[in-house]
Amino acid sequence: MHWLKWTAMLVALALLAGCQHVASRQGPQVQRFGSVIGLREDKIAYYKELHANTWPGVLEMIKKCNIRNYSIYLHQLDDDKYYLFSYFEYTGNDFEADMARMAADPITQKWWQETDPCQFPVKHRAEGEWWANMEEVFYCR
Amino acid sequence: MHWLKWTAMLVALALLAGCQHVASRQGPQVQRFGSVIGLREDKIAYYKELHANTWPGVLEMIKKCNIRNYSIYLHQLDDDKYYLFSYFEYTGNDFEADMARMAADPITQKWWQETDPCQFPVKHRAEGEWWANMEEVFYCR
Repeated sequence: MHWLKWTAMLVALALLAGCQHVASRQGPQVQRFGSVIGLREDKIAYYKELHANTWPGVLEMIKKCNIRNYSIYLHQLDDDKYYLFSYFEYTGNDFEADMARMAADPITQKWWQETDPCQFPVKHRAEGEWWANMEEVFYCR
Repeated sequence: MHWLKWTAMLVALALLAGCQHVASRQGPQVQRFGSVIGLREDKIAYYKELHANTWPGVLEMIKKCNIRNYSIYLHQLDDDKYYLFSYFEYTGNDFEADMARMAADPITQKWWQETDPCQFPVKHRAEGEWWANMEEVFYCR
C-alpha cells in the first residue's frame, strides 16, 4: 500500500498548488481605481466606435502594465454634459512606473491622439491629471 | 509501474478539479453594473461615516444576493454637485429576483432609510430607477 500513500500526497500537493494559483490571482496586491472625464457630445459616436474595436496593441499594453477588469461607462449628468467613468484593477507593484511605460508606447500614443480630442477633463481634478481620480467611499469584496 | 499511471491520472484529475474551481469563480455568468446618483453636499460626512462602518446585515445581504466586488466612488463634477458612482459584479442567475429579495430585507430597508435622504437621483434615468444605470462602452478583461 506504499503507492497509495504517495498518490495521496501527490494529490494533496496538486490541490494545494491549485489553491495557491487561485490565491495569487486574487492576491492582496490588487488596487482599485475609479476615474472620471468628460466626453464631447459631438464625439460620442466616434468614441464608441473606437472602443468597440479597440486596437489589439492598446489592449496588449493594458495587460502588460498590470491593468485588469477595466470598464468604461457613459452617462449624461444634470448639467446635460456627458461623462465617462472608468473602473479598473491594478495588480502590479509600481503603478507610476507601469503608467510611464504605457505612456511611452507608440501604439498607445497614437490611440490617445484619437481619444484625447473626444474628452475634456473635469474642473475638479489634481494637478497633471487627465482622467480625475475619484475617492472610494465603500468597498465590499 | 502500474501505480505510476494511476498516480499520474489522479494528479491530472486533481488539477482539472482545481481549474474548474477557478472557472466557476470567474465563470461566464458575471454581469458588470456601473451606476450613478447624486450626493447632497450637507450629507457627505454622514454618508462616508455610514459606509466606513456598513452594518454587517447589509453586507451579508449583498453577498446573499450574488453581488461581489462592489465599490462606490465620490467626485464633484462641473456643475459643482457631488455624485456617487458604483461598480459591482453580479454572479447569480436572476438579477430582478435577487434585487427584490434585497429590497424585502428589513435590515437593508432600515439602511436605505439612512442612505436615501443623503442621495438625489440624477435627471437622466430610466423610469423607476433610483441609482441610474450607465452604458458600458468598453471592457478589457
